[in-house]
Order: sequence, then C-alpha cells, then structure tokens
Amino acid sequence: MSKIRPIGIVHSPFKRKEDIDSKKYADSQGFDTVHGELEIFKEYEDGLKDVEGFSHLVVLFSFHKSKGYKLHTEPLLGGILRGVFATRSPNRPNPIGMTVVKMIERNGNRLKVSGIDMIEGTPILDIKPYTSRDQKSPIKLGWLEKKMNS
Amino acid sequence: MSKIRPIGIVHSPFKRKEDIDSKKYADSQGFDTVHGELEIFKEYEDGLKDVEGFSHLVVLFSFHKSKGYKLHTEPLLGGILRGVFATRSPNRPNPIGMTVVKMIERNGNRLKVSGIDMIEGTPILDIKPYTSRDQKSPIKLGWLEKKMNS
Repeated sequence: MSKIRPIGIVHSPFKRKEDIDSKKYADSQGFDTVHGELEIFKEYEDGLKDVEGFSHLVVLFSFHKSKGYKLHTEPLLGGILRGVFATRSPNRPNPIGMTVVKMIERNGNRLKVSGIDMIEGTPILDIKPYTSRDQKSPIKLGWLEKKMNS
Repeated sequence: MSKIRPIGIVHSPFKRKEDIDSKKYADSQGFDTVHGELEIFKEYEDGLKDVEGFSHLVVLFSFHKSKGYKLHTEPLLGGILRGVFATRSPNRPNPIGMTVVKMIERNGNRLKVSGIDMIEGTPILDIKPYTSRDQKSPIKLGWLEKKMNS
C-alpha cells in the first residue's frame, strides 16, 4: 500500500506511557477529562475545513513506541493472555491506534480536544468525522465485560 | 513508522466501488444488512482468540483503489467542497479506512460480519474490539447533519 506518513502530532499531558493510570482504560469515561491538542502540519491545514462542526473525531495514529508484537498478549487490565485482535494493545502487527476524541475548539492547524489517551509526540495519521454510523448499541464486550464499567 | 502490511482481506458483495448505492452512506443503518467475511491470513489466526465474545469490531483497512487526494474534496453525498478530514472519502493523505462491523460468527480464520461497506479484496490492516469508550452520544454532525438520518 501507499507510504504512510504523519500528518501531525498529538500534544498530551502524558509524557510517557507510564504516566497513564491503567485504571482509566476500564472506565468508558476515564479519559474524558484529559485535554490535549492535535497539531496538524501546515501543509495539511486546508483539509481541516468543516471539522469544527463535528462534536467528535476519529483519530488514527501510530503507536510509535511499540516494538514488535505477540499474537497472544496480556491486556493492560490484567488477566490471562488474549488474542491481540481482541485487545487494544499498542503491540500489534500494524501498530495503528484509533481513539475517538471530543472537539473543543479549532485554532488554525491546532484542534483542542478531550479524550486524549495518546502520549506526547504521537504521530497522527488521519482524522475523520465520527458519525451515527460509528454509534453501535447495545454492544457485548467479551472478556472485557467484567473489567469495564460502562 | 513500521511497515504496514495486510493481515487479511475483506470478502464483500460489492465487487467494485460503483456497486455501492451512495444513499446507503446517508443512513446510519444503511449497511447493516450487508454481510461479508473478514479472512485473516493463517499466520495471524492465533491473534483472533477471544474476538468472538465481542458484538462489534473496529476494522482498519487500506483504501487500495484510492489514487491521490485533494485537501478539499466533494463528498459522495454531494454538495460543496469539504475539508478531506471532515469527510470519510477514500482519497486522503493516508488512505486508511475505519468501519465498525457486527460480529456474526467465527470459523477459524474467517469472521462472518455485517455492516460491510468495503469492496471485495480490500486489504485488512487491523481488527480491534469496539468498546464502550467508542460509544459517543450525543453527537453533532456538522455539514452532514442535514444529509444523514440517524
């Protein structure tokens, strides 16, 4: 496939992975109060036209600190080994993350958002509007069911 | 970033982009009745352990037919030019798509799913469990508000 390259970087209060309290992952609102910025490189700024109308954005990003992967992996929330595709682990065959953030304010090429669970300097690969096609309900959470509070 | 390579391919009733009725995109349930399969290559099959417990999966895939992009683009649903990051157009700086599908049944390395909006042969890059952290409500749809029925 075409070459993948960053279109921007995440500014986050989390400077390192170790700064993130893993309990947050178990709470569906755990990151809602975490604010940060999506800085889109100037050459892509024109592509941000109209994003300010959406309340939520899908952010695709590179797990740039990830080093390799195992097909069976121990989840951050603990417990027995799970298939990597049944987890959101950063260590995956293609280390691409997906997080839905809430739009607060756009200032030119910088988007103030909440819901940040990435670390400072994370390369952004794509931004997409979150739409009603992405809202699924009711859902079943498999092994996460007992780990996560909704 | 690390090299991106397919972990599987999509089997879809849509053989070409032209087979998709664009009205479906305007309906949040437009693709709910579209069934297909996610075929994960044998070497990654072990990573599918536990996915069958989840009702919905996030699928990242390559827009492999996409050729280049413009920062201002005309949406499939028509109308004036929009910033590419305010659309789900396949023609984007990093041509990676994201669709949430519903899990029906797992048979080894093949996942029967519904909600398919990709074409036959689309390279799959990643599969992740859809969790309550991905459920956002209420949402605002910006320019899509008048185009889409929820």
